Amino acid sequence: MEYTEFFADRVRSMQGSAIREMFKRMADPEIISLAGGNPASELFPGDELSKIAGKILMTSPTLALQYGTTDGYPKMKECAIARANKVNAYNAERDAVIIMTGANQGIDLTAKALLNKGDKVVVESPSFIGSLNAFRTYECGLVGVTVEDDGMSMEGLEDALKNNDGVKFIYTIPTFQNPTGVTMSLEKRKRMLELASKYNVMILEDNPYGDLRFAGEDVPTIKSLDTEGRVIYAGSFSKILSPGMRLGYIIADAKILEKVEILKQVNDVHTPMLTQLMCVEFMKKYNIDDYIAKNRELYGKKCACMIENMEKYFPKGKVRWVTPEGGIFLWCECPTITDINPVVDKCLEKKVAIVPGSNFAVDMSAPSNMFRLNYSSATLENIAEAIRRLGGVLTELL
Amino acid sequence: MEYTEFFADRVRSMQGSAIREMFKRMADPEIISLAGGNPASELFPGDELSKIAGKILMTSPTLALQYGTTDGYPKMKECAIARANKVNAYNAERDAVIIMTGANQGIDLTAKALLNKGDKVVVESPSFIGSLNAFRTYECGLVGVTVEDDGMSMEGLEDALKNNDGVKFIYTIPTFQNPTGVTMSLEKRKRMLELASKYNVMILEDNPYGDLRFAGEDVPTIKSLDTEGRVIYAGSFSKILSPGMRLGYIIADAKILEKVEILKQVNDVHTPMLTQLMCVEFMKKYNIDDYIAKNRELYGKKCACMIENMEKYFPKGKVRWVTPEGGIFLWCECPTITDINPVVDKCLEKKVAIVPGSNFAVDMSAPSNMFRLNYSSATLENIAEAIRRLGGVLTELL
Repeated sequence: MEYTEFFADRVRSMQGSAIREMFKRMADPEIISLAGGNPASELFPGDELSKIAGKILMTSPTLALQYGTTDGYPKMKECAIARANKVNAYNAERDAVIIMTGANQGIDLTAKALLNKGDKVVVESPSFIGSLNAFRTYECGLVGVTVEDDGMSMEGLEDALKNNDGVKFIYTIPTFQNPTGVTMSLEKRKRMLELASKYNVMILEDNPYGDLRFAGEDVPTIKSLDTEGRVIYAGSFSKILSPGMRLGYIIADAKILEKVEILKQVNDVHTPMLTQLMCVEFMKKYNIDDYIAKNRELYGKKCACMIENMEKYFPKGKVRWVTPEGGIFLWCECPTITDINPVVDKCLEKKVAIVPGSNFAVDMSAPSNMFRLNYSSATLENIAEAIRRLGGVLTELL
Repeated sequence: MEYTEFFADRVRSMQGSAIREMFKRMADPEIISLAGGNPASELFPGDELSKIAGKILMTSPTLALQYGTTDGYPKMKECAIARANKVNAYNAERDAVIIMTGANQGIDLTAKALLNKGDKVVVESPSFIGSLNAFRTYECGLVGVTVEDDGMSMEGLEDALKNNDGVKFIYTIPTFQNPTGVTMSLEKRKRMLELASKYNVMILEDNPYGDLRFAGEDVPTIKSLDTEGRVIYAGSFSKILSPGMRLGYIIADAKILEKVEILKQVNDVHTPMLTQLMCVEFMKKYNIDDYIAKNRELYGKKCACMIENMEKYFPKGKVRWVTPEGGIFLWCECPTITDINPVVDKCLEKKVAIVPGSNFAVDMSAPSNMFRLNYSSATLENIAEAIRRLGGVLTELL
């Protein structure tokens, strides 16, 4: 039987993330992937978490295996708040926190709480496809604003807010943005808050990479600068502990999270208990900042290795990039061409996976001359080899 | 600041599940809860899962801690299919399976894939509040059909389908229904398929309790009788392994699940890897059916204990119930009154928690003279004591 007539409008034209589709095709172990957003697995604290999980299930099986509360295990909420406090993203007087099965769930359910069909979201263009697709499922309009080397264009943002009715919120990844790796300046963060207040819209600040700075100085989170309660903050343990555990959180005024909690309740009821308990124990027994520091150091090395090889193997003057100060992504533009897809395809033939820029665009059908590289996942050796191959393809095709 | 103007219509009037709210109030350890839907924690295989989790994280940390695929870990999908095959709920020729973070997520995302605003869902009345609330978030209409002692009224169902435009699917828990404990007869299951075909609607069959039969004979799943591909099947590990692990699955024609998978991808990306791997290992090392058999036996005893005490302590002729043949719920009606809430409140004073019937109704504002009892969670001793106290309250107030 055919099902088209049964589908809701929201999914009729939806495509899955090409990046995650690529995951499936990458069963070929010879492929070096610079395509995903995987953190470095070589640093995962497997032994520590093995002991922790074993002990939790032995000593507290009921707690770990029975239903939990929708907003999260209380001590896990404290862990999330502790992380948020490091960047002043938790306002104890008015904020609440909900533990999410990954920050992506928090972004999806926040959008669900705010967006009616036809509402609009202002987003960085390019931006994280997982969030853009989540927004798209609520049949909203996406208004893209250019990302400059110091973050979203504020002229572009004001134009977007001035010229569009029904904007509910601005979605931003201000620090080590996905896919550009760019960090928004303090001035722009302040300006974004002013504009959000002037045009009366909310801000959804997504900060999965903020802890991963390996150069330069920290910039305050937008949430920390927010005096009105206008910022909803999404945090994640995916890039500082483990993405497979699916642990994230949303922090915002309690009146907002009351609604988000209902949507979480009808979605997955609560985040699995064991992974929450493991995170709590890990943060109790170990200094997670020491562990993060190791990751930061490794990512700094990997990023430097990637750039060193890009400088060596990429055709001179034909590829532009901004050197990231942290995070896991490097964004490249090829001004002499209009469509990167032939490069991406040729790379796959050479067993290197990269993501074409169109995936991150508001209008995914337009060709892009950009591509995203991930440097956190592959080994130093594989990064060098992959960039050498990619450089060969670029030299041939640009 | 005030946020009302920012909220989507779907959440403006939404209330959380009163049952899960009750969870929060039940911090008082003296309260005996017959209110939740918790499986018996005394049988949780904590030691076995402790060893399994410890070993997985020690030997396969990358697999357990890195990102996984959205549709689920392949061997976990095999485990879900193995469970579904026991009740002929998997059609290898056309079906696909997606691992969900609890079956509730599968129900939510299936509804999201099918429902436009204004569409309708035909549901048993009363039914599981988690599903009803999930449907409500897509701004659909709910059409309730009476539950009889052998399941949903088929006259009621045909009326509902005949008199309502825009019905996308029928939602049913045919076996040991929540909250009534009732099982739909084979004849009615066949008739439901005929009517679904005649009126061209889908069926969403939710079967979390099907394995928990302790009396009577198994009835085939609706999915097993479906020749057209009209049934979407939701299965769960919550009542046969652990609810806190949040493991469920959806089985349906691959063309439907292609859309559901996109919605899962933008929701929690994938179900946590560790819990999936633990379930796979548990099913490999142990015979889960032996473990389920122990649960069935215990639930049979607990149900018998509850009924024995109901017969002893409830005022004669004033409370009506159908004796369940499995599952975890018992449903009571008090024909001499119109509103059970004074009984529920008085019970809480006596440190016994039960759920008023209005929670499960399509129209939650109408008073109900019914209440739901859970017998899986409390100990035999506590069941006897709680029913004695409840009997006292009923004797006083009926």
